[in-house]
Amino acid sequence: MCTERTPRVAAARALTRRAGREKAGRFLAEGAQAVREALAYGRVHEVFVTAEAAARHPDLLRAADEAFARVSEVTDKAAAGLSETVTPQGVVAVCDLLDKPLETALAGSPALVAVLVGIADPGNAGTVTRAADAAGADAVVFAGDTVDPHNGKCVRASTGSVFHLPIARSRDVTAALAACRAAGLRLIAAHGHAEHDIHAVELTEPTAWVFGNEARGLDQATLDACDNALRIPLYGAAESLNLATAAALCLYETARAQRRPTR
Amino acid sequence: MCTERTPRVAAARALTRRAGREKAGRFLAEGAQAVREALAYGRVHEVFVTAEAAARHPDLLRAADEAFARVSEVTDKAAAGLSETVTPQGVVAVCDLLDKPLETALAGSPALVAVLVGIADPGNAGTVTRAADAAGADAVVFAGDTVDPHNGKCVRASTGSVFHLPIARSRDVTAALAACRAAGLRLIAAHGHAEHDIHAVELTEPTAWVFGNEARGLDQATLDACDNALRIPLYGAAESLNLATAAALCLYETARAQRRPTR
Repeated sequence: MCTERTPRVAAARALTRRAGREKAGRFLAEGAQAVREALAYGRVHEVFVTAEAAARHPDLLRAADEAFARVSEVTDKAAAGLSETVTPQGVVAVCDLLDKPLETALAGSPALVAVLVGIADPGNAGTVTRAADAAGADAVVFAGDTVDPHNGKCVRASTGSVFHLPIARSRDVTAALAACRAAGLRLIAAHGHAEHDIHAVELTEPTAWVFGNEARGLDQATLDACDNALRIPLYGAAESLNLATAAALCLYETARAQRRPTR
Repeated sequence: MCTERTPRVAAARALTRRAGREKAGRFLAEGAQAVREALAYGRVHEVFVTAEAAARHPDLLRAADEAFARVSEVTDKAAAGLSETVTPQGVVAVCDLLDKPLETALAGSPALVAVLVGIADPGNAGTVTRAADAAGADAVVFAGDTVDPHNGKCVRASTGSVFHLPIARSRDVTAALAACRAAGLRLIAAHGHAEHDIHAVELTEPTAWVFGNEARGLDQATLDACDNALRIPLYGAAESLNLATAAALCLYETARAQRRPTR
């Protein structure tokens, strides 16, 4: 039985902070759903589980066994120390960081990519990643000062999607956009003040959607670096949509257009 | 200067609870944005504001004056007692309840309506109302045991949209659906296990979208009462979308189809 003083548990606890994750090259996936997806799609080194959670999720123990991941029982207190939630679920996996180099994530002629520039809320970043996955996107790029995709809130909000599709990180927005263009993608900025809306054009070309900060949107330099900008039409009296909703509409509109039989 | 013991402030405090709202027929709109929308669209009886918030939002005081709403300065402590947020913004409006009878909300040949059945999270209900407003919906119906549209979290998540379009409440789901049908609307259930997806059909008819509980979806009786059911296509590995994202996609797909020039 591991306690919070067991060296491996203490080392895992450091992964709840971004600096600890960068240093170790690992992060924590918390909760039954995230651990299940991590075991199915990711590289899991170890699963920490309380006795109660182990009894509740026998499928997870089998999946860990099949993935050659070590399973260690921990005390409730140790599990709480590895948790970023108010009510710890008692199961957490130590995984390799997810992100790949830009060129790797964008390899193979992608048709649809989401680029997040300066997204501040990890829940939003996770929800957009989930929508990108659902819309069949080929990759998600976390650019500029966007939150860490390995942040626990981002992983949870993605409901496993951070494991499903390639993720790249780049502090350098210009480099991220250049890599998208080099991959044959047209860069379209989602921009509330754009002249045209997403229903006014045919979004059939390979497209990288560029989404900006929740409050400030995209800065002028990023807008200028994109091929064009489109907005979501607002038919009623609402002044805007939230970022995750707007991103889902942009991504699905493109997925739909790219899949429609040509006329 | 009003304190928490001033009778009007004490009466307003009762509006932070559902029972108090039902009894008084009033609710609280909190924060500068909500109060601004309430003054523009709703019937506001009184605005309580701290000295600091009054100095920060002179436009709100002018708008209150133009709406013949009484403005009362309150202490920080009194403002905190009227707040449902961790960091009170110091301005809150006492408003008439928003909901209208079903027949009133659905009058005038509506083309697009959102019906929420058993939505448990007020933030989700508010976000769906915002998306319905943005998509140009004619009304939102809060049916069954859906949260109260006047809940502070719902009002905030709607970013004013609860004031923009007619809202009806009905505990009786059957009556709500019957009222939609009587208004000439086709009832379409948003259902993850539906045979067809929203991209497979032409959504040009007047439509009431029926959205279910975040975890359980719609029950069989409600599904049976609808004319048909559609799902959001999932092109990647995601198992689902969150309710607010799914609702926005359904509503916008319909808005788009209804506005497209006929071919």
